[in-house]
Amino acid sequence: MDNKPRATITATIITRALLPLLLLIAASVQADDAALREKAESAGLEPIPYGLAEVKDNPVTREKIELGKMLFFDPRLSKSGVISCNTCHNLGTGGDDNLPTSVGHGWQQGPRNSPTVLNAVFNAAQFWDGRAEDLKAQAKGPIQAGVEMANEPEQVVETLNSMPEYVERFGRSFPGEDDPVSFDNMAKAIEAFEVTLVTPNSPFDQFLEGNDGALTDAQKQGLELYIDKGCTACHTGVNLGGQEYFPFGLVKRPGADILPPEDKGRYRVTETATDEYVFRAAPLRNIAITAPYFHSGEIWDLEQAVAVMGTAQLGAKLTDDEVTSIAGFLETLTGEQPLVEYPVLPVETDSTPKPKL
Amino acid sequence: MDNKPRATITATIITRALLPLLLLIAASVQADDAALREKAESAGLEPIPYGLAEVKDNPVTREKIELGKMLFFDPRLSKSGVISCNTCHNLGTGGDDNLPTSVGHGWQQGPRNSPTVLNAVFNAAQFWDGRAEDLKAQAKGPIQAGVEMANEPEQVVETLNSMPEYVERFGRSFPGEDDPVSFDNMAKAIEAFEVTLVTPNSPFDQFLEGNDGALTDAQKQGLELYIDKGCTACHTGVNLGGQEYFPFGLVKRPGADILPPEDKGRYRVTETATDEYVFRAAPLRNIAITAPYFHSGEIWDLEQAVAVMGTAQLGAKLTDDEVTSIAGFLETLTGEQPLVEYPVLPVETDSTPKPKL
Repeated sequence: MDNKPRATITATIITRALLPLLLLIAASVQADDAALREKAESAGLEPIPYGLAEVKDNPVTREKIELGKMLFFDPRLSKSGVISCNTCHNLGTGGDDNLPTSVGHGWQQGPRNSPTVLNAVFNAAQFWDGRAEDLKAQAKGPIQAGVEMANEPEQVVETLNSMPEYVERFGRSFPGEDDPVSFDNMAKAIEAFEVTLVTPNSPFDQFLEGNDGALTDAQKQGLELYIDKGCTACHTGVNLGGQEYFPFGLVKRPGADILPPEDKGRYRVTETATDEYVFRAAPLRNIAITAPYFHSGEIWDLEQAVAVMGTAQLGAKLTDDEVTSIAGFLETLTGEQPLVEYPVLPVETDSTPKPKL
Repeated sequence: MDNKPRATITATIITRALLPLLLLIAASVQADDAALREKAESAGLEPIPYGLAEVKDNPVTREKIELGKMLFFDPRLSKSGVISCNTCHNLGTGGDDNLPTSVGHGWQQGPRNSPTVLNAVFNAAQFWDGRAEDLKAQAKGPIQAGVEMANEPEQVVETLNSMPEYVERFGRSFPGEDDPVSFDNMAKAIEAFEVTLVTPNSPFDQFLEGNDGALTDAQKQGLELYIDKGCTACHTGVNLGGQEYFPFGLVKRPGADILPPEDKGRYRVTETATDEYVFRAAPLRNIAITAPYFHSGEIWDLEQAVAVMGTAQLGAKLTDDEVTSIAGFLETLTGEQPLVEYPVLPVETDSTPKPKL
């Protein structure tokens, strides 16, 4: 029975000396977390907002979302009947296709890496060069691009009009319109569906919303480095990017494998010399599940991508530890992936245009 | 107040004279329906059974179904990372791809029309020539076929082993096995998922199960013709086909567009002269939503397909009305399509083999 006095002594020590110390440490950790959270917010970082985002000139309704989902998954929007939006923006693999550049009509390879459709609604503009002002403008691009879905608007509208269920759903989605089945409305419906493709509640979002335990200490250090090293100069806002345009190779241009000389980026849109090799800062949400990286899709390793960014954009040779730490933070940007019921698509009729390979 | 006596008279007439007549007609219609139902059953036609089918050497579990669903939708089972099972067996369009023959690796076109995966579990064997005895044997084919997914078993296993979530799910799906992540087990999981891909409760099933009103009179006439003309000689059982092998052109060989001379069908499997141009009788469930038809996929119109069958297999030139009537019955074979939540797939790692285009 020697233990009892010892236990009593231990308890006394804890109460009188250690406990206040532990509380002090806990309080200081909490204060650190609060300070880091404030620092992140000051750098413009934001959690994914609750509720459906609003989009310009396109009131989002349940009808429209459901129609848009069908269109998103319908390969008959392509000339071949083989390729759907989901082929290159696969909702099962982070909203992209895990390829350096996408495979399209006739097995052609596109010029740039397919960006994720997840959270794309929070980008200021769409495509790597921002040439589409919003998702409805974006949706019309790949359907017509010869190396992607290779279709024509008239053919798409003919296809949609050939299936009574689509005609009915367009009518209900765009009530009161004289000509609801149109290429523009197709794009609007797809945009409405894409508004739902957000990935909230990532560990990073949870941290921003006040849950100190959502990030590990190492991840918090990574977040701090991400801000201190200046990553947030370009990669900030809800999407940690996707807002503004910057030259790739702001400080030092990367090699031709990563930055192929023939793709001059935003120059193609603005034809302004200063826009040569300028791209929209990549949005970084779900970045850990959307390799390979950069518009060329040449880098598969997230740490390597961080190191390239350090040299090219920050002019800072990040140490291996710093790279690992920042990449560790970026992994906390993987959110809850959208759960989608695979749509049963409208049935073709005799007047549905035949696929052309 | 002249109406009352008239109403009374009318009521009297109905009660005393017309009502028994109406009841007699109703009873005779009911008797007709019962007779037709009995006739259909005698011809071997059966509704889709309730509950999950059992398959050989592969106990179906929830774990295995969920894993199989992921594999079914995962394009990383293909060499290119572009093609999944669902590419050619699209669950949104009747479990096939709406193409004459499928497009595979390198945009090559396969030799035969992609059969629907829906209700395939009820077929006696798989593929047009029955060369796979069941779905797990079938699943291994397209993954390795050079014109389809063009992959190799070792590469597939390496891909699966590179993703911790897959390793875990295989372990849970095949408990107690030393080497759960295997090509064979991949096929078993896909089979387990495919067991769930059935389409019950079609109007025809409802009729067989006793609902007289599930078919219109015209559809009932179509069913009667379908039996009387001898279609059930080959196309019977749960799947209205999929059970036995018959020469295409039993009576009169169709043209080379429909029956290309170079594809000798089951001869390739058995190397028996009598198996030249022999094929498994096509299962007819959901036939109205799985055009184009025949192994060559050359016929898009269901009525035309019925007419071809009449000439080639029955030696009967069906009248236009008969063709329309039989096709009308075939439309009642479209059942409730499976509702599937699109899977969020396991995340790749550094050791995941890179796609090869």
